[in-house]
Amino acid sequence: MSPVRFALIGTGRIGQVHAASIHRSEDAVLAVAADAVLAGAQRTVGQHGGRATADPFEAIAADDVDAVVIASPTPTHVDLIAACLDAGKPVLCEKPIDLDITRVDAIRERAARGRVVLGFNRRFDPHFAELRRRVQAGEIGRLEHLAITSRDPEPPPAEYVAVSGGIFRDMAIHDFDTARSFVPEVVAVTAVGLRQFDAGIAGQDDFDAAVTTLVGAGGESITITNSRHSAYGYDQRLEAFGPGGALEVGNVTPTLVRASSAASSSTGEPYRRFFLERYREAYELELAAFVATVRGEDAGSPGFEDGRAALLLADAAEVSAREGRTVAVDLS
Amino acid sequence: MSPVRFALIGTGRIGQVHAASIHRSEDAVLAVAADAVLAGAQRTVGQHGGRATADPFEAIAADDVDAVVIASPTPTHVDLIAACLDAGKPVLCEKPIDLDITRVDAIRERAARGRVVLGFNRRFDPHFAELRRRVQAGEIGRLEHLAITSRDPEPPPAEYVAVSGGIFRDMAIHDFDTARSFVPEVVAVTAVGLRQFDAGIAGQDDFDAAVTTLVGAGGESITITNSRHSAYGYDQRLEAFGPGGALEVGNVTPTLVRASSAASSSTGEPYRRFFLERYREAYELELAAFVATVRGEDAGSPGFEDGRAALLLADAAEVSAREGRTVAVDLS
Amino acid sequence: MSPVRFALIGTGRIGQVHAASIHRSEDAVLAVAADAVLAGAQRTVGQHGGRATADPFEAIAADDVDAVVIASPTPTHVDLIAACLDAGKPVLCEKPIDLDITRVDAIRERAARGRVVLGFNRRFDPHFAELRRRVQAGEIGRLEHLAITSRDPEPPPAEYVAVSGGIFRDMAIHDFDTARSFVPEVVAVTAVGLRQFDAGIAGQDDFDAAVTTLVGAGGESITITNSRHSAYGYDQRLEAFGPGGALEVGNVTPTLVRASSAASSSTGEPYRRFFLERYREAYELELAAFVATVRGEDAGSPGFEDGRAALLLADAAEVSAREGRTVAVDLS
Amino acid sequence: MSPVRFALIGTGRIGQVHAASIHRSEDAVLAVAADAVLAGAQRTVGQHGGRATADPFEAIAADDVDAVVIASPTPTHVDLIAACLDAGKPVLCEKPIDLDITRVDAIRERAARGRVVLGFNRRFDPHFAELRRRVQAGEIGRLEHLAITSRDPEPPPAEYVAVSGGIFRDMAIHDFDTARSFVPEVVAVTAVGLRQFDAGIAGQDDFDAAVTTLVGAGGESITITNSRHSAYGYDQRLEAFGPGGALEVGNVTPTLVRASSAASSSTGEPYRRFFLERYREAYELELAAFVATVRGEDAGSPGFEDGRAALLLADAAEVSAREGRTVAVDLS
Repeated sequence: MSPVRFALIGTGRIGQVHAASIHRSEDAVLAVAADAVLAGAQRTVGQHGGRATADPFEAIAADDVDAVVIASPTPTHVDLIAACLDAGKPVLCEKPIDLDITRVDAIRERAARGRVVLGFNRRFDPHFAELRRRVQAGEIGRLEHLAITSRDPEPPPAEYVAVSGGIFRDMAIHDFDTARSFVPEVVAVTAVGLRQFDAGIAGQDDFDAAVTTLVGAGGESITITNSRHSAYGYDQRLEAFGPGGALEVGNVTPTLVRASSAASSSTGEPYRRFFLERYREAYELELAAFVATVRGEDAGSPGFEDGRAALLLADAAEVSAREGRTVAVDLS
Repeated sequence: MSPVRFALIGTGRIGQVHAASIHRSEDAVLAVAADAVLAGAQRTVGQHGGRATADPFEAIAADDVDAVVIASPTPTHVDLIAACLDAGKPVLCEKPIDLDITRVDAIRERAARGRVVLGFNRRFDPHFAELRRRVQAGEIGRLEHLAITSRDPEPPPAEYVAVSGGIFRDMAIHDFDTARSFVPEVVAVTAVGLRQFDAGIAGQDDFDAAVTTLVGAGGESITITNSRHSAYGYDQRLEAFGPGGALEVGNVTPTLVRASSAASSSTGEPYRRFFLERYREAYELELAAFVATVRGEDAGSPGFEDGRAALLLADAAEVSAREGRTVAVDLS
Repeated sequence: MSPVRFALIGTGRIGQVHAASIHRSEDAVLAVAADAVLAGAQRTVGQHGGRATADPFEAIAADDVDAVVIASPTPTHVDLIAACLDAGKPVLCEKPIDLDITRVDAIRERAARGRVVLGFNRRFDPHFAELRRRVQAGEIGRLEHLAITSRDPEPPPAEYVAVSGGIFRDMAIHDFDTARSFVPEVVAVTAVGLRQFDAGIAGQDDFDAAVTTLVGAGGESITITNSRHSAYGYDQRLEAFGPGGALEVGNVTPTLVRASSAASSSTGEPYRRFFLERYREAYELELAAFVATVRGEDAGSPGFEDGRAALLLADAAEVSAREGRTVAVDLS
Repeated sequence: MSPVRFALIGTGRIGQVHAASIHRSEDAVLAVAADAVLAGAQRTVGQHGGRATADPFEAIAADDVDAVVIASPTPTHVDLIAACLDAGKPVLCEKPIDLDITRVDAIRERAARGRVVLGFNRRFDPHFAELRRRVQAGEIGRLEHLAITSRDPEPPPAEYVAVSGGIFRDMAIHDFDTARSFVPEVVAVTAVGLRQFDAGIAGQDDFDAAVTTLVGAGGESITITNSRHSAYGYDQRLEAFGPGGALEVGNVTPTLVRASSAASSSTGEPYRRFFLERYREAYELELAAFVATVRGEDAGSPGFEDGRAALLLADAAEVSAREGRTVAVDLS
C-alpha cells in the first residue's frame, strides 16, 4: 500500500512531534507543511521532506495531500476543520476544537458526515490503553470507580494562561476525555476549584488546582485530581476499581535503575518530566491509528463528538466550581 | 512506675482488642471488665486477669480503677463518658461519641475540663503516622493535597447498616479524622454519594460508596474515596502532595513474598483483609499513647473536640451529597 | 495449660531478646536467669520476673525449670547442652553448637536422645517461612536454584572477629542453615573468599566477603553472597527459582512510606539496619515453636543435626576458599 | 552529514533486526544485503531498500559500502572480519568471533589495526548502561560485587546446542562481557556446571544451568547465574554493590499496568519473553554507536579484544566447571 500523504498545519512544538511521527512511519509521508511563519514550515520540510507553504488552505486543498494534521493555534481549528470537510479529507486536529461551544456546534452537523479525529493522544498511551483493554475485557467486573491523577510539571506562562480558557478547558479537558474513554455517558459534574500556589493564575480568576468528580449514567464515579505543578515531574496516573479488583498505572521513569543507600531504599529515577517524553509512544500510535482511519479501518480514534463532549464537561466543571453545586450534563 | 489499672466497658470484638493490648503492655493491667452480658466480661478476665461485672458505672467508679476504655455500643457512649468525667477518670472511648450532634454538645463543656480520648486508632498506624510526621517536618513543603482511599472489604450486615448513621457517620468518619490530623481547620465539604452495588444499602436510603472533597482554611484540598466493598482486601491508602513532592503509603501485605510465573510478575500477597490485622499495631500504640495521657504526658491522642469535628464533617457531607451542593462548615 | 517455666542462661544482648519473648508469650514464664555476671541476671529478672543466679548448672537442674534457653558465649554451649541432656530438659541453644566439629561430635549421640533445638531464628522469619512454605507446596515446581543474599550492616569489632571462627563459621553459618531448610542434603561446596574493604579482617587472615555455591543431592544450586558491610542496612534476601517460576523476598523497611521529589521517585525508607529489628518477629516465633516442642508437638524447629550440618558446611567452605577447589561433603 | 552506507551479511533473524535498525536511523542506509540464500537477501532489500547478493565478499568490497554488519553463522565470522580488515572497512560483527581461540588469535594483530566492533548489544541496553554510568560516576563507591542474572526463556533446539560451543561459550559469553564492562581485568574464574532439567543437553555433555564467580584484579567479585529456561520470561537483571550502597535493574514488563484482586496484589504483567523485545532499544543504540564509530567518534562500542576476552573467560569457566577448581586467567 502506498503511504498516506500528509499536510501538516502548524510547525510549532506539537507540529514537530507529528512531523517526526510521519517520518518514522512506513505508512506515511509528509507532502506539505504549512505555517503562517513560513520559515518554520521550511525548517520542517528540510528535516522531514515535502514542500512548505504559508497558506494552510492551499495545503489542505492540494492534490497530493490525502489527509491533514492540524497543529496550529486553537482559534484556527474550526475554520481549518471546515476546510478539510469541504475538501473531503480526513483530519487529525489537536484538542480543543474550540474554547467556545457555539463555534463547535456550528460545524457539528458537517463534521458528522466527515472524518474528524481529535488529538486526545493519551488514549493511545500503551499503559493506559492496556489498562482500558483489561477493564473492558471484564477483568475487574463492571467499572465502579476511576481515579485520574493529572498534574503538570509546572504552570504555563501567564500569557498562555490568559488565553487558555482556564484549567478545566485547557488542562482537565484531556482527563475528561480519558474519563469518557471508560464511561462515555457522563451525567453529572461536581468540581472544586483551588488556588494553592500561583498568584498569577489567581489574578486571572483561574484555578491552579482542581478536584472534579464525574458520575456516569451507570452510577460510576470518576475523580480527576489536577494541579498546575508537580515537583516530581509529569504526574499521570490511572486507577480503575470494580467488584473484581483494581487495575492501576503509575508514573513512568526513563530506566528501571533503583538505588539503595544509607539514606533510602529502592529509589527510582525522577519520573519523565515532560509530556513529549511521557507520551512519545502515544503520539506515534495516535498517528498510526489515524493512518488506519484514513485507510477506512476503525482504529478507535476519538472523533469530533468526543472533542465536543470533553468541552461540555469542562464548561460544566467551570460552572460547578464557581457556583458550588453539582451540574447535570447531557452529552447526547 | 506502677501500671495503669483499667476498667474495660464492653467485651465484644473491639473490647477484646483493647483487653489484649492492655495484657501485652508493661504499663497497663486490667482491673475490671464490664459487660451487660456478664459471661462476656467473665471470659475476658479469665484470659487477661481482673474481675468481671455487669454494671459499667460500678466499674468506672471503682477505687482500683485509674482509667476507662469504652468499647460498648454507640448509644451508651455519652452517658459512660459523662460518668468518667464525674469520676474524674481519663477515658478512651471508641468512635463515634454519638450519632446525634446535640447529644455530643450536651457534654461538650464538661468534656473540655476532663481527659477524653477518642478511639481514632488510625492516627497511630505506624505508616500513616510516619507519613504525617514527614509532612509536618516540611519534607514536601506546605501540604496542598491529601488523597485518602478507604474501602472496606465488604459491606456490614443490613441490621448494622440500619443503625449505623450512614456511610459518612459510620465509615467516612475515620477518614474525616485522618483529614483533620493533617488539616485541622476544614471549611467546606463537597460530597457525592453513590449507589453502585448493594441494593440493601440503597433500600435504606444510604450510599454504598462516596467521594468527598474537603477544603481547608489554608486552601488545602482533601479527597476521600470510600466504598463499602473491596475485592482485594482492606484498602487504606494515603497520599500527600506539596510543592516539594509527594509522600504515599500503600496497602499492607502479610509478608513480602513476591511471585513471578508465566502468567504474571512480581505478584504480591493479597492485602490484609480485616481491620484488626491491618491496624493491629495501631491499636497497641493507641493504648500506649492513652497510658501516657493518663500519666499526664501529651501523647497526641485525639480528644473530644476531634470526635465532635469528625461528626460535624460527616453531617455536612450527608447534606452535601443529598442536596448536590458544597456545604460550609465551622468546626470551632 | 500452665506456662512453660524457663531458665535463661546468659543475659547479654541476645539473652535480653529471649527474656522479652518469654515475657510476651502467654505460654511461657521466666523462672530463673543465670549469668556469670550476676548483676546482669538480676537486672533481667527485675524486668521480667523470676530469680537470678550466677550458676547456670544450678538453673538447669532446678525443679521449677521445665526448659532452658542458652544465650551464653559459644565456648560454653557444649557443656551446657550436655547438662540439659543430663537433666532431661529441652534446650534451645544459640548457634553455633561449637566452632570445633570434634567437640560437637562428642555429644552427638547423647543429643540424638534428647530435645536440642538450635537458634537458627531465620527459619521463623515470616517472610522466609512463607516463601519456603510456597516452594514446598510446589508453586514453582522442583526447586532448581536458591539465591541467598546476606550482608551485615557493618563488620564486628576486631576482638570479636579474632574468636569468631571466620566469616563462614560465624556469619555464613546462618545462610548454610537457610540453604538446608530448602535442600537438606548438600553434597558439594565451592566457595570464593574475598578481601574487599577491611584491612583488620584481612590481617587476621579472614575474609570480609564471600561467594559460596552449594550443590544439593538433587542437582539444586544455592548461591550465598556474603559481605561484612552494607551501607543500606541489613541485607537479607531470598530468591527461589524452579521450572514453574520464582519466589522472592526483599528487604524490610520500618514503614511503607515512599517519597517522590524532583530528585527521585518512589523512594523507600532505609532498610531495617539491625538484626534485632529485622528478625524481631522471628525471635518470638522461634520461642513459640520451642514452647510447642517442649509440649511434645513437632513445630519444625531446627535440631542438633542441623547445627552440626551447618558447621560442616562452614568447614568445607573454608577449605574450598583457601584451596580454590570444590569440596565434597557428606552430612549424614 | 550523508548517511553511512551499509552492507549487511546474513539476513536471518538477527540480520532482520539490524536491517530494521538501519532503516529507522536517520544516519544509516542499507546499500546491500548478502545471504547465501539469495531469496533472503532479496526479501530484506524489498523491505528496506538496497540491492541483494549471494556473495558477502563482493558486498564487503563494493564501492558504495562504507561499513559492514556481520550477522551470518559463527563459523564465517573470522573470514568475513578479515575481508573487512583487508578492505579497510569498519565492521560490526555478531558475537562470538569464533568458538576457537586459536582462530580468533590468528586475526588478532590485524584486527588491532582496524575498526572491529563486537555485537554485545547488552552494553547499550538503556537500563544497564545507566546503572553502569552511575557506578562509574562513583555513586556507590568502588565496585565490590556485581550480580548478573541471566536466564533464557527456553532452551535452544538440540541441533543448535550441538554446535553452540556449550552454555559458557554460547550463552554466558554475553554475561562475561557485561562483567568486563564493569571490571575489565578479570583474574580468576570459578564455575559450577549444573544439569537440572534438560536431558538432551545433558546427553550432549553440556550444562543447562551454571553459576560462575569471577574475581577482578581489584578484588571485585562477580556472580553470574545462568539457566537455559525461565518460566516467567527472559530473566536479565543486574545488581551492583559497593561501600556506598547498591544499584539494581530488574526485569522489564511491556506496560506498567498492575492488578490487585482477591488472590493477589500489585501483580505485574509477565516480563518481556524474547530477547528481541527485551533488547529492542539496545539494538538500535548499538547501531547508532557503530555509526558514530564509523564517523570516527569514540562511542564506547566493545571491540575485538572484548570479544576475545569474553571467549577466554568462557573457556576458563568450562575448565573450572569440569575440573572443580578455580582457574586463573590473563586477558592481556
